[in-house]
Amino acid sequence: MNTFGRSFRITTFGESHGPAIGVVIDGCPAGLPLSVSDIQPLLDRRRPGTSPLTSARAEPDQVEILSGVFEGKTTGMPVALLVRNTDARSSDYEMLREVYRPGHADFTYQEKYGIRDHRGGGRSSGRETVGRVAAGAVAAKFLARAGIEISAKVEEVHGVSDPGAMEEEIRKAKQSGDSVGGIIRISATGVPPGLGDPVFGKLDAQIAGAMMGIGAVKGVEIGDGFASARLKGSEHNDPMDGTGFLSNHAGGILGGISNGNEIVVRIAVKPTASIVLPQKTRSVSGDEQTISITGRHDPCIVPRLMPVAEAMLALALFDAWLEQEKYRAFPQERDLK
Amino acid sequence: MNTFGRSFRITTFGESHGPAIGVVIDGCPAGLPLSVSDIQPLLDRRRPGTSPLTSARAEPDQVEILSGVFEGKTTGMPVALLVRNTDARSSDYEMLREVYRPGHADFTYQEKYGIRDHRGGGRSSGRETVGRVAAGAVAAKFLARAGIEISAKVEEVHGVSDPGAMEEEIRKAKQSGDSVGGIIRISATGVPPGLGDPVFGKLDAQIAGAMMGIGAVKGVEIGDGFASARLKGSEHNDPMDGTGFLSNHAGGILGGISNGNEIVVRIAVKPTASIVLPQKTRSVSGDEQTISITGRHDPCIVPRLMPVAEAMLALALFDAWLEQEKYRAFPQERDLK
Amino acid sequence: MNTFGRSFRITTFGESHGPAIGVVIDGCPAGLPLSVSDIQPLLDRRRPGTSPLTSARAEPDQVEILSGVFEGKTTGMPVALLVRNTDARSSDYEMLREVYRPGHADFTYQEKYGIRDHRGGGRSSGRETVGRVAAGAVAAKFLARAGIEISAKVEEVHGVSDPGAMEEEIRKAKQSGDSVGGIIRISATGVPPGLGDPVFGKLDAQIAGAMMGIGAVKGVEIGDGFASARLKGSEHNDPMDGTGFLSNHAGGILGGISNGNEIVVRIAVKPTASIVLPQKTRSVSGDEQTISITGRHDPCIVPRLMPVAEAMLALALFDAWLEQEKYRAFPQERDLK
Amino acid sequence: MNTFGRSFRITTFGESHGPAIGVVIDGCPAGLPLSVSDIQPLLDRRRPGTSPLTSARAEPDQVEILSGVFEGKTTGMPVALLVRNTDARSSDYEMLREVYRPGHADFTYQEKYGIRDHRGGGRSSGRETVGRVAAGAVAAKFLARAGIEISAKVEEVHGVSDPGAMEEEIRKAKQSGDSVGGIIRISATGVPPGLGDPVFGKLDAQIAGAMMGIGAVKGVEIGDGFASARLKGSEHNDPMDGTGFLSNHAGGILGGISNGNEIVVRIAVKPTASIVLPQKTRSVSGDEQTISITGRHDPCIVPRLMPVAEAMLALALFDAWLEQEKYRAFPQERDLK
Repeated sequence: MNTFGRSFRITTFGESHGPAIGVVIDGCPAGLPLSVSDIQPLLDRRRPGTSPLTSARAEPDQVEILSGVFEGKTTGMPVALLVRNTDARSSDYEMLREVYRPGHADFTYQEKYGIRDHRGGGRSSGRETVGRVAAGAVAAKFLARAGIEISAKVEEVHGVSDPGAMEEEIRKAKQSGDSVGGIIRISATGVPPGLGDPVFGKLDAQIAGAMMGIGAVKGVEIGDGFASARLKGSEHNDPMDGTGFLSNHAGGILGGISNGNEIVVRIAVKPTASIVLPQKTRSVSGDEQTISITGRHDPCIVPRLMPVAEAMLALALFDAWLEQEKYRAFPQERDLK
Repeated sequence: MNTFGRSFRITTFGESHGPAIGVVIDGCPAGLPLSVSDIQPLLDRRRPGTSPLTSARAEPDQVEILSGVFEGKTTGMPVALLVRNTDARSSDYEMLREVYRPGHADFTYQEKYGIRDHRGGGRSSGRETVGRVAAGAVAAKFLARAGIEISAKVEEVHGVSDPGAMEEEIRKAKQSGDSVGGIIRISATGVPPGLGDPVFGKLDAQIAGAMMGIGAVKGVEIGDGFASARLKGSEHNDPMDGTGFLSNHAGGILGGISNGNEIVVRIAVKPTASIVLPQKTRSVSGDEQTISITGRHDPCIVPRLMPVAEAMLALALFDAWLEQEKYRAFPQERDLK
Repeated sequence: MNTFGRSFRITTFGESHGPAIGVVIDGCPAGLPLSVSDIQPLLDRRRPGTSPLTSARAEPDQVEILSGVFEGKTTGMPVALLVRNTDARSSDYEMLREVYRPGHADFTYQEKYGIRDHRGGGRSSGRETVGRVAAGAVAAKFLARAGIEISAKVEEVHGVSDPGAMEEEIRKAKQSGDSVGGIIRISATGVPPGLGDPVFGKLDAQIAGAMMGIGAVKGVEIGDGFASARLKGSEHNDPMDGTGFLSNHAGGILGGISNGNEIVVRIAVKPTASIVLPQKTRSVSGDEQTISITGRHDPCIVPRLMPVAEAMLALALFDAWLEQEKYRAFPQERDLK
Repeated sequence: MNTFGRSFRITTFGESHGPAIGVVIDGCPAGLPLSVSDIQPLLDRRRPGTSPLTSARAEPDQVEILSGVFEGKTTGMPVALLVRNTDARSSDYEMLREVYRPGHADFTYQEKYGIRDHRGGGRSSGRETVGRVAAGAVAAKFLARAGIEISAKVEEVHGVSDPGAMEEEIRKAKQSGDSVGGIIRISATGVPPGLGDPVFGKLDAQIAGAMMGIGAVKGVEIGDGFASARLKGSEHNDPMDGTGFLSNHAGGILGGISNGNEIVVRIAVKPTASIVLPQKTRSVSGDEQTISITGRHDPCIVPRLMPVAEAMLALALFDAWLEQEKYRAFPQERDLK
């Protein structure tokens, strides 16, 4: 299932080493000024090859708008966005054709589909997120017009939270042929009350699904998250006065509906699965092997996941926004008649 | 949105103090022996009034099968399950008509819908989960035939993990007019490799959405979860040998697809929002108030959420199972021709 | 798949001779005054036993609202509607347990599901439409507030179009142990331009699916329908002047979107499959048999399908209305900024 | 809504005069040998510029596979297919920017979206069907492996059914600056019993929606269609003997489920809306005008719709096939235990 969303539906396609990667946005409202310059900067943030601490793969990730925009504005038709793959050194991966990399989806794809594009993980590659980030840029532009802003920051890398120490952890991991994970906090300000649909389209449920659907994410929290399990009701409930809520333990969501406070989400990112250190594994045919993965990999994927996590939050929020729109007319009507 | 699932689709309905509560299961395969006795025991586990530490509301929660079963077997038609509400003392809630309870969905429902059934929280009540548990029982029976078993246990209440100490925490909370939260671990054994659909129907994404959609849940982890953010790749990756995986940090899911290991999920449950201790809040019209909630409430909802969490995992897994089924035929065909 | 609609989603359940029949409406906007008296009259029109020319089954079809309405208004929560079956003489059908009735779904249900509720056709019975008509009544009430009115009329019975002659055709069919079909015209006035979503959610495509999904319907036309295949472009195109369209060959839909004209739909209804005249058929185990069906059946189902067809058009239109709503906000926004 | 299907989901994108047109297939089973040569011949059949009686637009319609195929086989990942537009003479359409063509979607798109790509009808152009035909080719290849073959033929053009007379009608229409419509019969052989999901996923309902969603189609019939409304039950019911059905008035579908007979569908195609003859219309701003449309248009679109109608039937059938697959496992299981 390569579609996310109910009203603002994105369908991503493409593999790490195929000809191209992209996304089709269906349900994109008409009338939004949209050009490549709205999307490219986000892709550039996600892009590899921009720092000595990230993968050396050098992809320009130049996006092309194939449909849904006419004379600079969206038309209500599907917006298709395409990025050609250029620096795909498939030969790097030939050795992986017959072996399962620990921590990767190689084994499960082979089991499920009976076939697998082993080149760079095929579609299970982080490269698939290009489509998400491109579509998220469109969602974010709509949200910005409604005063909603989304941002992410790295809270922890390998248990440390000082930026300099974080970088040092990544450097050490790289030097030792290992990798590290971390925690990202994503938040949205300016979200009005009312987004989210009980009981199975709750905003927090949509966000949790969106975040856990990012490769490498193993945990999601809203507001106080796991810490709330150790609080008392008198500590966790957010009291109100005439002006609004006096605290935000709930992370901006009550009963699955936004309450007007900042939406606060935290995600746990596992350490990159591809490491140089030798690991025990097996081949497709079942033989035990030891593997050392020496391709172009990020020793810590956390910084590059920030724009992806922002994109997924933008997509979840704008989808909830459109879902909410359709129920406005009749209550308003009611007041008039 | 009151429907969960793509192939095994459940739609729940009913409010805490309405005439009835129930669920319709669409996409239920034919041929499963099914009777009230498959469902009632699960509802009894979820039921209030069974311990001095839970709500005193005494609901028999007797389920009736309205359709989809003929001569003791499912027919492939929608299975509708109904439970009548009986002990609904709506007058207890009259005082809540004009006031928002902190930590509850009162404010957000009013903002979203412009109207709200204030009696016991209406549909945002935990009572809505009756339908989920009933449908989960049907999913669990299918799964059991395939050798898949699901179970939940309380790992923590208010930060303590010894069963006696947990009970003591609940007792203390009750005595002080307060409430406590906790952590539940839910797991599934016997899950074959191959369940889950990249990239937006990943099994972990489906489970995360399912769990975060339970009222009071504020965090979800798969496998090592947040702890994985503090591990190195060499510690977190699960190595393999010829017999399978040698550890299960991943919690049974790789690349969004089950890998044959135990599926391990942990959820953070916030403390019950309804407490006797006085809290600052506001009325619907905006006046500041102090509220003390004295109805029949659980000082800790964690134990009663266990069957709900099991139900949601069963629903997510069986839905993934059916989704997987549809792609089996052609690969098999391929081998033949 | 027992759910219809994308925004106003109805899920029907129940069999002809099970305990009850009903519907859950998910996505019902809040704030609509709704009571049994809005729904019961429609069910009464659909009801059997009201004329010597219809089935003698005497069902009161008394509807109960189980959820989603509070103090007389919809709350935005799912509206569940239930009708108990009372006059279910299952013994009438015992003879049909082992035989396939020609023109019925007996054979196909058995092939598909390996099990079949043979009593009155189970869920393939026309009785399933009770849920559709009940839900359609709710949709129609919303539409009426927006000035949209739906009505159906019988245009033909067995090829004749004079009302007296139609009744005579039905009487003759009944006397000879046979049955007849006919044609119904359904139309909607007051539909604003803009409903319908290209390219796969076109209003005419939604209507065609809705109508062909009614048992016994074998053809659907929009506007001039099959006659348009024999016209020239210069005859079929609806010219415009400054006030609007000068004709309505298109039946109110252009490019899958309503154009403000009357929506005109015609459906072909086959003759009732249950007839007294002897027919060749086979048993479940494969033996050839001759069958004469003597239960309580309508010699012509056309008149009783009118409220069903109206309901399906109301459901399709209101669903399209809600889908349209979600795209209004941003174009308006555009004009402001 | 630019997605069709539940299990085999296609999303089309692109406009007549945009950079490209294409489709993403989500839910495509793994293991099917697939190359451009499976798709190109179908596109070539649909292509304009191949006869003096069709549009003179000369598009090579060369398809590129962007994802989902690895070493010649589908991988279970989304299959993205792209066709670049080349012969897009947008200037031909400049005169249409401010005027509504009768019989076209110009007016309704403008009303719905507040913006419209006037070049060749934008997305309401028949060119959008390139994506459908490409995806249909993939569905048809799967179906062929299961022994299911689909074919279409033109039954009528402007009321005549002799092939030579049909061509003459088209020639006359072209000469007089007018256009004609017709009727296409599409059928599928080798369809096993069991496809289709009551009550809203009926095979005939899916097919009717699929066909009515093709631009220019104004009517759909299954089996005897409208003629069945003039038959008696004793004439229309298909009797059975031990070997199967003795006739096929039902067109291969009973109760919304395939019965093993040939699936027979007929569609009514209206005359091409673009004609040279002068027509009354209005401008976007409301002025009355007379329009004569002189671009490159087919005087009769019927022949070129054949591959489109075949594609839609293939898509509906293969989607129903996959939906059916998921319910097979448990009945089989039942027999074993």
